[in-house]
Amino acid sequence: SNNFFLLAGPCAIEGEEMAMRIAERVVEITNKLEIPYVFKGSFKKANRSRIDSFTGIGDEKALKILKKVSETFEVPTVTDIHEVTDAAMAAEYVDILQIPAFLVRQTDLVVAAAQTGKTVNLKKGQFMSPESMQHAAKKVYDSGNEQAMITDRGTMFGYQDMIVDFRGIPTMKQYAPVVLDVTHSLQQPNQSSGVTGGRPDMIETIARAGVVTGVDGLFMETHFDPANAKSDGANMLHLDHLEKLLSNLVAIRKTVNSL
Amino acid sequence: SNNFFLLAGPCAIEGEEMAMRIAERVVEITNKLEIPYVFKGSFKKANRSRIDSFTGIGDEKALKILKKVSETFEVPTVTDIHEVTDAAMAAEYVDILQIPAFLVRQTDLVVAAAQTGKTVNLKKGQFMSPESMQHAAKKVYDSGNEQAMITDRGTMFGYQDMIVDFRGIPTMKQYAPVVLDVTHSLQQPNQSSGVTGGRPDMIETIARAGVVTGVDGLFMETHFDPANAKSDGANMLHLDHLEKLLSNLVAIRKTVNSL
Amino acid sequence: SNNFFLLAGPCAIEGEEMAMRIAERVVEITNKLEIPYVFKGSFKKANRSRIDSFTGIGDEKALKILKKVSETFEVPTVTDIHEVTDAAMAAEYVDILQIPAFLVRQTDLVVAAAQTGKTVNLKKGQFMSPESMQHAAKKVYDSGNEQAMITDRGTMFGYQDMIVDFRGIPTMKQYAPVVLDVTHSLQQPNQSSGVTGGRPDMIETIARAGVVTGVDGLFMETHFDPANAKSDGANMLHLDHLEKLLSNLVAIRKTVNSL
Amino acid sequence: SNNFFLLAGPCAIEGEEMAMRIAERVVEITNKLEIPYVFKGSFKKANRSRIDSFTGIGDEKALKILKKVSETFEVPTVTDIHEVTDAAMAAEYVDILQIPAFLVRQTDLVVAAAQTGKTVNLKKGQFMSPESMQHAAKKVYDSGNEQAMITDRGTMFGYQDMIVDFRGIPTMKQYAPVVLDVTHSLQQPNQSSGVTGGRPDMIETIARAGVVTGVDGLFMETHFDPANAKSDGANMLHLDHLEKLLSNLVAIRKTVNSL
Repeated sequence: SNNFFLLAGPCAIEGEEMAMRIAERVVEITNKLEIPYVFKGSFKKANRSRIDSFTGIGDEKALKILKKVSETFEVPTVTDIHEVTDAAMAAEYVDILQIPAFLVRQTDLVVAAAQTGKTVNLKKGQFMSPESMQHAAKKVYDSGNEQAMITDRGTMFGYQDMIVDFRGIPTMKQYAPVVLDVTHSLQQPNQSSGVTGGRPDMIETIARAGVVTGVDGLFMETHFDPANAKSDGANMLHLDHLEKLLSNLVAIRKTVNSL
Repeated sequence: SNNFFLLAGPCAIEGEEMAMRIAERVVEITNKLEIPYVFKGSFKKANRSRIDSFTGIGDEKALKILKKVSETFEVPTVTDIHEVTDAAMAAEYVDILQIPAFLVRQTDLVVAAAQTGKTVNLKKGQFMSPESMQHAAKKVYDSGNEQAMITDRGTMFGYQDMIVDFRGIPTMKQYAPVVLDVTHSLQQPNQSSGVTGGRPDMIETIARAGVVTGVDGLFMETHFDPANAKSDGANMLHLDHLEKLLSNLVAIRKTVNSL
Repeated sequence: SNNFFLLAGPCAIEGEEMAMRIAERVVEITNKLEIPYVFKGSFKKANRSRIDSFTGIGDEKALKILKKVSETFEVPTVTDIHEVTDAAMAAEYVDILQIPAFLVRQTDLVVAAAQTGKTVNLKKGQFMSPESMQHAAKKVYDSGNEQAMITDRGTMFGYQDMIVDFRGIPTMKQYAPVVLDVTHSLQQPNQSSGVTGGRPDMIETIARAGVVTGVDGLFMETHFDPANAKSDGANMLHLDHLEKLLSNLVAIRKTVNSL
Repeated sequence: SNNFFLLAGPCAIEGEEMAMRIAERVVEITNKLEIPYVFKGSFKKANRSRIDSFTGIGDEKALKILKKVSETFEVPTVTDIHEVTDAAMAAEYVDILQIPAFLVRQTDLVVAAAQTGKTVNLKKGQFMSPESMQHAAKKVYDSGNEQAMITDRGTMFGYQDMIVDFRGIPTMKQYAPVVLDVTHSLQQPNQSSGVTGGRPDMIETIARAGVVTGVDGLFMETHFDPANAKSDGANMLHLDHLEKLLSNLVAIRKTVNSL
C-alpha cells in the first residue's frame, strides 16, 4: 500500500497482560488503516537517569512476552539491546534489534547485532549529525547484513531540550530506511528531578512533519495509562488517541505519495 | 479558499525590471493556485556580515518600485525596516512592515511600526524561543495595532547552522498568525568567508513540514538568477521551481484542512 | 601596570545620585588595585523583552549624568547606542560608544559610531561565532577608526541559557582588544516571565576564566541594591562584593603576566 | 602540596614501548612539579565513528602493559571500560575504572565498576548537564563505593563542535572531585570524513580556565608523535609541550590556592 510502517508499543514490558492489551489494540487499528506494524517493547531499561528507576521484570521473562505477542498477533517485534551478549539472546525472540541512541557509537554492539542476521534499528545519537549516521549504517553493512534502519529521536538543544532536525530525514534516507521516533523526540532531559520530561501535546505536530518529509516509518510509545506506566510516562501517547492520530497521518501520506 | 498565504520576492530590490519580472511570474502562479500573495522586497540591506556587501539602490527608489509592483499587479507588499525613522517612510509605500530577526527586541522600532497602523511582521530572533515572541506581539497590540504576524526563520544551532523547531508553529499561533520563512531558515551563518551559506535543496522539506504543522503563511525569497543576485544568492529559490513547489504544498494544505 | 581594565557601573542610569554613588565606590576600589576604570551606564534600555519594562529617565538627562561622573571622578565613560542618530548625540557626552549584541550586525550603526572618532565597543552577538566578529571590527577600521574593542557576553545555548566559549578570547584578540562581560554572560534569557534570569553566583568563576585566558578588560554591572534596580537585577554584582572579586582577579592577572 | 592531580597518557595503548616512553617522561615532569600523576591508556577503543578505525592490540595485552607501567613507575593507572564484563577484568590491572561519556547513563556498567571497589571516573556525557551528573555519582555511592570522580569533556554545541561550560566545575564539585579533560573537550565531532577533528592550539586556554575555576584534576592525552598515533591524533598534546604547560598551570594553581 506504500504506507509508512509503525513501530509502537509500551516503553517497557511491564508484564504479559499489559503487553497483550496494547498489542491487541494497535493491531486492530493498524489493520484497519493498512499500516505495517511492528510491536515494540524494551525487555530491560538499562540507561535510566536515576539508580532507583524501574529497570524491568527480568530479561528472559520480558523477551518471552515479546515472542508471545508476535505469535498471537502475527506481527514482528523489536527490542533494544545494551551489551554484546544481549544480541544473540534477544535475536532468539524478536525480529528487529535496536541499538539505543547513547550506544550507537559502540562498534562491538552494532556488529554483534548485525551478525545475528536480524534487522538492526540504529537510533541516531542525540549528539550526532544526520550525516554521521552513515558510518553507523556502514558498520551493519560491513558485517554482511543489509537490513539496517535509522531512527531519529531528536537532537540535543541546550541541556534540557531536544529538537528534530527535519533536514536529517532526506539526508539519512541516503543510508537506510528512516524512522522518526515521535515520542522520544519530545523528551526534555536533564530535568532537576532526574526524571526526563516531555511534550506529548506535540506528538501530532512532529509526526505530521515526519510523514511529509518522507519518513519510511514512525516509532512511538503508547500505553493505556501513561501516567502510571513504569517508565517514560511523560512522553507516551495515550492509546485512546492513537487511531485518530494514525488516521490523520495516513491521509497525509496518501497525499505525499501522489505528488 | 482557506489556503496558506505567501510572502515572496527577491531578497533585495536590485532594480525595477527584476522586481516586475519576479512579481509577474509569482502573481501568475499564485493566481492559478489561489494563494493570497504579498510581494516581498528589501529596500535596504542593513545588517550584512561584511562592510563591502551590497546594501541597496537607494531607499526612496526601491520603495517606489515596491509601490509600482503593488499598483501594477494589485498585490500588497512587505518590506523590512531597521530604524525608527524608517517606519513612517516605508509605511507610505507598503502594506506590511517587517521587523528583522536581529531587531525584534528593539521596543522603539516595533512600536514605531505598530503606530503606522500597518500590519507588523515580527521575525522571531534566531536567539529567541517561540514562547518569548508573545512579548514582541504584545508590543504591537499594546500600541493599539491588532495586525501582528510572527515569522519563524530558524533558530541558531551551534555557530554555523540553524534548525527550525516545528513545536514553535502551534506555540506561536497562540499569539498571532504564523509564517515560516523557508529560505532564511536554511541559512548557515558565520561562515569563514563572511558570506552566509545555505541549503536550498532543503526548501521543499522545510516548507512541507511548515504547511503540515499549521502555518498561516509561507515566506520565501525567489529570483530568476539566484547565483547572480546581489544578496542571499545561497538561499533563494530559483523562480523556475516555484510553481511545482507551491502546487505540492497546496495539495498538502488541502489534506490538512480536511482533517 | 599591565593590569586588565574594567568597564563597570549600573545597568541603567536611574538617576544622578545612584550613578555618583556607584562611581565613587568603584573609583575607590580600582584606584587601590591599579585597574584602569571606565564608568558604564545605559542612557536608555531599548531592547527589553516586555513593553512594560523600565526604559530610562530621558536620554539627555542620563547622558548628562554620565558626563558629570566623568568630570567628577576623572574617568572615561561608556554607553550603548541603538540607532544611527544616537551616535553623534552620545559622542558628545561619553568616551566609548557600545554597540549592543543584538545590533552588532547593523552596518549603519557601527559605521555611525566609528565615524564619531570615539572608541567603539562591539558586543559579540549571542548568535555569532568569535571568528565572525572580525567582520564587525573591520567595519570600524574601514570607517577610518582604529579604536575598536570586542566584548563577549556569552553565546546562546538552547533557548534559555548561555555559555561563554573561552576559545573565543584568544581568537577575537586577533581582531581587537577583548573584554569579557561577566554579568550578561550569565543571563538566562527567554524565561516564561518575560524577565531575563541570571546566575550571579557564577560571576567569579567566569571572571577568573576570562582573566586567565587573556582578556584585556572585564565588563560587569554592579549596583548597591541589585534586587531593587530598575533593570537586570538578576545579573548585577552587589557593589559590596566588588573589591574582593577584583582583588582576586588582579592576583591571577599578575601570575598570568609572569608566565 | 594541594596541587591538582593529572590523568595523562596516550589515547590507546599501541604497544609496550610507546606506553613506557610516555609514562617515563610524564613521571619525570610531574615529579619535578609535584603533581600527583595517574597514567592513562585505553586498552580498547570501542566507540570509534568508523568501522575501519583502529580498536586495539588485544585487551589482555594492553591491560598488562598498564600494569607494567604502574609497577615500573609506581604510579596508579586508569582505563575505560565499555561492557559490564570489562569491569572485573580491568579491575585486576588498574586503579581507576573510567566510564566513557557515551556510556555514563548505563546503570549496569556504572554499578559493575563501582562494585569492584576501584575508584570510578565518570565522564560527563556530551549531552548531559552538570547537574544531571549527580545521578551518575549517586549510582556509584549507592553501590557502596565512595570513590567517584567526574570528568568534564565538553558539551555538544551544534553538530560539529563542543564547548566547555565552566559553570559546571563548581556545580559538579558538589557531587565528587572534578577533572577537566582538556584534550577531548576540544574535539570537533561529526566531521564529514568520519574522523573527529580537534583544536589542540586551545589546550592551554581550556586548561588554565579549568585550574582557575577549581578543578581537582586535569586529564589530557599526550603522545610523542600525535600525527602518527593510532587514534585521536587531532587532539593529543605533543609530549614536548607538556612541561611548559603544566608549569604554567601549577603557577596559576598556587595563586588560586592563596586567594
